[in-house]
Parts: sequence; structure tokens; C-alpha cells
Amino acid sequence: MEQHFPKGNKPRIVIVGGGFGGIELAKKLRNKNVDVMLLDKHNYHTFQPLLYQVATGGLEADSIAFPLRKIFKGQKNLTFRVTEVHKVDAAENTIETSIGMIDYDHLVLATGSTSNFFGQAEIEYNAMPMKSIPEALNLRSLILQNLEAAQIAADPLLRAQLLNFVVVGGGPTGVETAGALAELKKHVLKNDYPELNIDDVNIYLIEGSPELLGAMSVQAQQKSADFLHELGVTIMNNARVSAYDGAMLSLVDGQHIPSSTVIWSAGVKGVVLDGLNAEKVVRGNRLKVNEINLVDGYTNIYALGDVAAMITDEFPNGHPGVAPAAIQQGKLLAKNLMNIIEKKPTEPFKYFDKGAMATVGRNRAVVDLHKIRFQGVFAWFTWMFVHLMTLVGFRNKLVVFVNWVWSYFSYDRGTRLIIRPFLKEKSTDEELAVQNETKTS
Amino acid sequence: MEQHFPKGNKPRIVIVGGGFGGIELAKKLRNKNVDVMLLDKHNYHTFQPLLYQVATGGLEADSIAFPLRKIFKGQKNLTFRVTEVHKVDAAENTIETSIGMIDYDHLVLATGSTSNFFGQAEIEYNAMPMKSIPEALNLRSLILQNLEAAQIAADPLLRAQLLNFVVVGGGPTGVETAGALAELKKHVLKNDYPELNIDDVNIYLIEGSPELLGAMSVQAQQKSADFLHELGVTIMNNARVSAYDGAMLSLVDGQHIPSSTVIWSAGVKGVVLDGLNAEKVVRGNRLKVNEINLVDGYTNIYALGDVAAMITDEFPNGHPGVAPAAIQQGKLLAKNLMNIIEKKPTEPFKYFDKGAMATVGRNRAVVDLHKIRFQGVFAWFTWMFVHLMTLVGFRNKLVVFVNWVWSYFSYDRGTRLIIRPFLKEKSTDEELAVQNETKTS
Repeated sequence: MEQHFPKGNKPRIVIVGGGFGGIELAKKLRNKNVDVMLLDKHNYHTFQPLLYQVATGGLEADSIAFPLRKIFKGQKNLTFRVTEVHKVDAAENTIETSIGMIDYDHLVLATGSTSNFFGQAEIEYNAMPMKSIPEALNLRSLILQNLEAAQIAADPLLRAQLLNFVVVGGGPTGVETAGALAELKKHVLKNDYPELNIDDVNIYLIEGSPELLGAMSVQAQQKSADFLHELGVTIMNNARVSAYDGAMLSLVDGQHIPSSTVIWSAGVKGVVLDGLNAEKVVRGNRLKVNEINLVDGYTNIYALGDVAAMITDEFPNGHPGVAPAAIQQGKLLAKNLMNIIEKKPTEPFKYFDKGAMATVGRNRAVVDLHKIRFQGVFAWFTWMFVHLMTLVGFRNKLVVFVNWVWSYFSYDRGTRLIIRPFLKEKSTDEELAVQNETKTS
Repeated sequence: MEQHFPKGNKPRIVIVGGGFGGIELAKKLRNKNVDVMLLDKHNYHTFQPLLYQVATGGLEADSIAFPLRKIFKGQKNLTFRVTEVHKVDAAENTIETSIGMIDYDHLVLATGSTSNFFGQAEIEYNAMPMKSIPEALNLRSLILQNLEAAQIAADPLLRAQLLNFVVVGGGPTGVETAGALAELKKHVLKNDYPELNIDDVNIYLIEGSPELLGAMSVQAQQKSADFLHELGVTIMNNARVSAYDGAMLSLVDGQHIPSSTVIWSAGVKGVVLDGLNAEKVVRGNRLKVNEINLVDGYTNIYALGDVAAMITDEFPNGHPGVAPAAIQQGKLLAKNLMNIIEKKPTEPFKYFDKGAMATVGRNRAVVDLHKIRFQGVFAWFTWMFVHLMTLVGFRNKLVVFVNWVWSYFSYDRGTRLIIRPFLKEKSTDEELAVQNETKTS
């Protein structure tokens, strides 16, 4: 399998990662006189802002993912490969991947971010991340498995543990997930699990700082907390997790919450490839880049989006890890790469902040568009409209729209299936057989 | 975890399996003076007739599955449990399951069928079955993985192997799968994989008897073969597989086809639980039942649908393994169980044959409704209408309908995602880690 993919005559731009930034860059290089090679470990682009709806049974995974080959249908100068990238060899202008060695003239790291457990291995092992489709599906399975297990749990302590759902991290993902769980409890669980006392189901949202949605306006912060209270979520501010063994969550202040389901949305870190100068990795595991996204100390390696830290006075830790920042950087980098190849002057990046929004539940969302801030029903429709429009692909827009309209009228969430049971222990052959389910089901 | 679930005051009917027969029986027992306990290893009902569309990227898995708890929402006399059933202890009127011992007064086996490899272990290990949602998703992943691998295969023999897709078995599932693969090749692959020569992609349909769709009319048989020819499928009749090692398929007549993707739809066998009298297991691994679906030799154990063989002059091997037979048996059994409990006379089963149909591709289907037989566009719309109407749940109908309409106009198939890579070797930790993808993606 060890192959070598040498360059052709045109300059080759290798892009690692088919997220928002990577695909924007690749698209803008269409019809340019370069060879573009896009690499991703998946054969699809993931619309991460809606992963929480997959995890809570509101949407099918296939409706928020889009085949990368289809995005680039007809783009003649682009080659796509499904592969893991192992290492960068900057001296040789080549990368080591699971399909072989790939040469580049310009390398763009659009590798995104992954959950940050801040070095706490036990929590990392036991808590559930939600940054990819397989992770979201695992979480969906776990939530449903724990509800099934609660139905037959004879021990009241075990029952409590199975029915306590804890979301750690009060950013947009945490707020949206806690809200979705609360709606699942309110509208679905009481019908699906008549044997359960629905009041025994508890949803906790744990946030280390004094407020939720730290990056948003005070109105949005307060209103989202109000919305979550209305939905019955227990918000714990100024609370920090010290340990989680899979059964008991411990907070720094000594409190304990028995829980089998801890969802980790407390932070992300950039995915940095091996072989790069470790001194250029700054806060949040991001690569320090200059105003044209060139990684500090390199002449032909770029980083953009979540993995890039373009440090400015306004953004001392780099730009926020949101889709618009990655898209804007990808768009400009396409232009600048062509400028560099054609030996023209480059243009520095300027971030256009599109505002922020988060949805808590039906008719309950918060929107900050700079000075314009609103919350409630209209904010909720705005949130849905913006997400629908940003979703890649007409089929996906259609299926998500159908699901949302259907959910709106039925108060239901349609896709609560345990397609692959989630098993924490990943060691024995028997469990492997269940996880694979290749021959047995 | 070893619990015991004793009966209450009312007679308890335990139903194993939430397929067409099991859910029909359970529904018809609504508001009757019995306790119904429905067991299934999944928390959802699978609409098996459309599994091949999931495997070929036409539909999302969630649109052909329906949560069992939702089907029985509000049915107060029904308890549902997700569990594997290990063994029947008929002497004690109890079953051993993964959640504990469950007592019954009447036991109904609606366990369905699984792929039949006729004892050929090597073929069973290497060929892909398609009888459940995880299996269909594994097949989807494998097809897409092999196309990706073909893009970078330097060895022409390996490329040929990766691009030959073989369907074994020319019944409705085999015909529909071969047709769907041919349409995938025609409309999707040439856009998605511009580096491939699409003529190198071959689809074979292998059938042991002289004709396809053996159970249908001669018109349907001939027309479906014509349709498949039009779509470029190579049909091999009177051909039997002798071996398949994962790379080379061998036929009894000495021919060989290099292929990495062999889809097995050559037969099914009933899923019979341990503990039952092996002498009552007849052809097709079905349980011999009498005219009220009582298993021969037992007084309170019933079997219905695919796992039951009600042998009559007209049906010397039992009824066909199709949804209507299971549904009709489930419906009557509900009535007869109440008759038995209330000590009234029972009513013998009479099968109403609803006809048969199969779709080959866009505008190409064959329908036999007794004397009325038609093929082509109208048959295709009939097929779609009947399947849409039979699908459980309004949301599912809606999502499938949206997908079909969208595919009709776009000539596309929307869900070609490798969500979990399929790995044949299931032994090493590394592969396990990829398969689980819990923490890594």
C-alpha cells in the first residue's frame, strides 16, 4: 500500500480537511491553474452545528453530512482522497498518509478541532464527545440504552445514575444540547417510557464561569438561562468538574452527581499534525499564523479555521472557532495562494463578525447581530433559516426542513434508534462482535 | 443483572421479535385482558424490503426503521424490552434473556429469518449479508471504500477485483440490489469518480436456477431480465457459487470472478431459539406449526412469519417469507390467543396472496397481482406507492417520499457516506478502535 503521489507540472496545493474552511478554499481554486488535492479521513463534510440534533434523535446523520466528492463534482483540477494524514515532512515538502507519501508545493492545514479534555484522561475515557458523526451516533445510542436500562434497574441508585444527564460546558453546543435533552424529556420520554416517572429524569448543565454563552451579549446570556430554566434544566454556574469515573461525576467544590451520561462540550483544541515545529503551537493547540494564514516559521505551510491562531489586538487568542471565520479565511487564502504563485502582493485577512446565535428549544432561541439582539420565537425562526441555508446540498436542506416541520407539529423527534449499541469497554471479542454486528444482526 | 420478571395476574403473552408479524400481533392485542411483553434485540422495527436502498446509498437508515416504543405508545397492556433471547425452557414456561428470566403463559416466536449460507463457512465469513440495518450500512461502507481504493490501486488485477460487484441470488432482493448498483454506476459513479473508467465497473447477478424471480410470472421473469440487461448487469443463470475467499469468487462450473464485494441474497433461514425440540425444525430452519401457528408438540408456544412452516398441500414448505404472510398470521393469532384464553374455538389460518412485485430501476418494475400482470413505468409507481404505504410512520413516509422525488429529478442518490468504515478482520485492537471510532473521529 506504500505508494508515492508525485506532483505534476502545475503547482500542487494539498488541503488537509474537508470542513468549512477546507471546502471553501478548494472551491475557490476551481478553474485556477493549480492542482488541488483535498484529503479527509471521511468521505463526507460534516455540518457540525447540528451534530447535537443527531445525538438527541432529532435528525438523521445523513442529513447533516454531504459527500465530499459530490461537492467537487466537475472540478477538474481537484483530486479527493479518503486518508488519514500521519505526519508532515516540511524539509521534503511531503506528507505521510495512510495511502502513501504525497508531495506538495503548498500545504494547507484545515484539520479543525477536537474535544479538549484538558489532559484529564479519566474524564476523556468516560465522558462523551460530540465533534463527529460517529461520536454523535454513539451518544444517541448511549442515551437510549441508558433509558432502556433504567426501565429494568432494580437498584434506585443505579436508576438515578441512568436518568441523570449531564452536559459540561455552557457554550452554544452545551446550551443547545441541554435544551434538546429537556425537550426530549418533555415531549418524547413520557410517551415512550410510561414505566418511568419522568420527574426522575434530570438534566444538568455545568459551566465553569458565572454565565452561559460567554461570547454573547448579556441579554442572550440571561434569556438563554431563563429558557433553560423553563424547560427544567438545572444550570450550575461557577462549577468545575474534577473527576468522572463513568458512574459518578465530581465537582471541584465537592458536589457529586451520579450519572451514566456525561456529554463533554467544555472546550476544543486544534488538531495539529506531527512533524510541525511544536513551538508554533499556541493556546488551544492552535498553530500561530500570520495575517495571510501562513504558519509562523514556514514558507509554504498554511493553517486556517479552528486549528489556526491569527493573533491580533482584537483577537489575542485568534479568531473564534466558528464556521464564518474558517470560510472567510479559506476564501481569502485561495486568492492569496494564487497571488503568491503569480508573484503578486497578498492581502491581509480581515474578519467580518456575522454575529452569534443559539437555540434552546421550540420557539426559544437567542440571536446577537452586533447591535441588534433578539430572543424568542423570531430568533428561533432566524436560527433555523440560517442553519438551513448554510447546510450543504439541496437534499439535505429538504430532509432537515421536512424533519423540522414534522417535529414542530408532532412535538416528536423521529430518529431515536440504537443502530449500533455503544459499548464503553472495547476489549473483549464478544463486545467487538456486537459492535461490528456484521454477521449477527 | 440476572433478574426475574414474573407474571402478574393476567395471562402473559411474550412475543419475541418486532418484525411485521410480531408488531401486528401485539397491536391487535391492544385493550385485551392480557399482559403483552414484546422483546427485540433492537429498539426499532426494520422495514426490510427497502434495506437494499440503504445499502446502495438511496435512503438513510433512519427512514426505514421505526422506534418500537413509538408504535406502542399508549398501549397500556404492553411492555417492551430491548434484549437478546438466549433460550426457551418450555418445561418451566420461561425464557432466558440477556436481561434475565421472563415467564410466559403463551410464547410467540416471531424471530424472522437471517441469511442462509447453506453451511459454507468461508462464504459466510467473506460475503456480505443484508438482512438488518447494521448489515446494510456495512455494505454501503464497503461499496464506497472499494471505490475509493480502486482510485489508487496500481495493480490492474486489484482494480478489477475492487470494481466487480457480485450479487448472488436472483430473487426480489438480488434483482433489486443489482438494479440499484447499476443505476449507481450509471448516474453517480461517473460524476463522483472522474478518474475511473466507468466501463471497468461490472455488476454480476448470479442465480442457480434458469430464471430470475422464480416465484413470479414468466412475464415478470423475462421483463426483469430485460431491464437488468438494459442497465448493463451481467446475469448468470444456472450458476452456483462454490467458494469465495474475499478476493476471488469461484463457480461450480469452474469460472472465476475477482471481486471484493459479494452480496449474498441467495436464501434465508429461520432464526430458531435454543431449547426447542430440534425435530420440529423443518426445511429452511423453520418451526413446524399447525393451522393456528402452534408449534408442533407444544401447547403454548407459537411461531409465525419467516420462522414458521405451516405445511399445506398448496404450501409444502410453508408460506412465502413475505410481510403479508407474517402480518396475516399475526392478526389471526391475536384472535386465536384470545379464543384460547377465553376457551372458545379457534379459527384456522387462510393465506391471502397479495401478489408480488420487484423494482429494477427508474421506470422499471414488474408487478404480478394474480391474473393482472404489468411491467415498466406504471409498475414502478405501483411499487413505490405500495412500499410507501406499508412503511411504518408518517415521518418515515415523508422522508422516503422526499428522497424518491429528489432522486427522480436529480438522478442522484444522496446518502453515500462511509459513517463507519467496514473492516473484515475483526481481531486487532487497532481495527477495533477504528470501528468503534468512539474517541478518534
